[in-house]
Amino acid sequence: MFIVFDGIDGAGKSTQIELTRAWLVERGHVAETLYDPGSTSLGLKLRELLLGNHDLTIAPEAETLMFVAARAQLVAEKIRPALESGKVVLCDRYTYSTVVYQGHAGGVDVRKIRAANDLATGGLQPDLAILFDLPAEVAFERIGGNLDRMESRGLAYFEKVRQGFLVEAQKNLSIARVVDATASPAAIQEIIQVHLREVLMHREAAR
Amino acid sequence: MFIVFDGIDGAGKSTQIELTRAWLVERGHVAETLYDPGSTSLGLKLRELLLGNHDLTIAPEAETLMFVAARAQLVAEKIRPALESGKVVLCDRYTYSTVVYQGHAGGVDVRKIRAANDLATGGLQPDLAILFDLPAEVAFERIGGNLDRMESRGLAYFEKVRQGFLVEAQKNLSIARVVDATASPAAIQEIIQVHLREVLMHREAAR
Repeated sequence: MFIVFDGIDGAGKSTQIELTRAWLVERGHVAETLYDPGSTSLGLKLRELLLGNHDLTIAPEAETLMFVAARAQLVAEKIRPALESGKVVLCDRYTYSTVVYQGHAGGVDVRKIRAANDLATGGLQPDLAILFDLPAEVAFERIGGNLDRMESRGLAYFEKVRQGFLVEAQKNLSIARVVDATASPAAIQEIIQVHLREVLMHREAAR
Repeated sequence: MFIVFDGIDGAGKSTQIELTRAWLVERGHVAETLYDPGSTSLGLKLRELLLGNHDLTIAPEAETLMFVAARAQLVAEKIRPALESGKVVLCDRYTYSTVVYQGHAGGVDVRKIRAANDLATGGLQPDLAILFDLPAEVAFERIGGNLDRMESRGLAYFEKVRQGFLVEAQKNLSIARVVDATASPAAIQEIIQVHLREVLMHREAAR
């Protein structure tokens, strides 16, 4: 089973991934948490080029393709092997992030990003994508002054990111579930567990 | 005017680029030679990750997307500005290399590589693509023991590369010209000048 957690930064993804992982382990699953793009050596190197505070010039299309390259490595090296060994994969960000940050918010052609994602993932889709929704101002405040190269683009950018994730949720109705990240961590976790139980039931029924 | 030189390694591309550049300058053109992926800071960093002798694991799809990312940067940072300022751009490798090395020879889906190239270049095509053809054994011998990560894949790989470039030449009949790289440098340059004169005449006529 492949579960993606995505959405605007500052929404509490990390906490929910940890809570979800604990819940799954309690129920007897073997769960592995992976980070897109950070969970491979190549991904870390690309991430450093992309988000580091250096003065490297990176065009929007190049930025897009580097994130997608890191994803290709993550799918080949970590996600597919983990799924094949029967693990539940919890993935922090996935294809949606690139479509939203570089596409909807960054102005790169969304259809071309989808095509590049398809090259990277071989079409591998999650069973469930939890998309965290948060008003742009709240996300902006929660992150505070701690902005990386991408986040320093300002509040209008955050607003485009938020809307972008909502568009993607609509485009992926069978997989994506939007959760209101202004709720308490416990309330959010409860909702995530409802969605997870649904996926687990469908998988049981399909056997 | 945008001229690409591509094809199997060991074919004498560099010599011909320099001869072509001198010929163009003599005729009053301002010419700039660029290297795909090397001619940008980002391209150099990606190239080091791709071709360096380290033990970084890189999946074929990730490799593909990194070359294409470097190309996106080259187009945005160097090729488009040079063309806009009226220069003739001579480019050592371009979209064909990725389609051939990672696609035809490397097994990555060729149509998906074309789509990624399209994201990177915004559809920018050269006015002329000189594709150097050489029997695989000859290319292999010429390079000698000096093989990088890609070339160390052996003679069968070189053969696929050669065939791949011939396929791409057929696919791009209006732009691509195959030259026999077993001829002498002077003879090859003469043929390239014939192709260049043709492009220059068409451009004059189009004014």
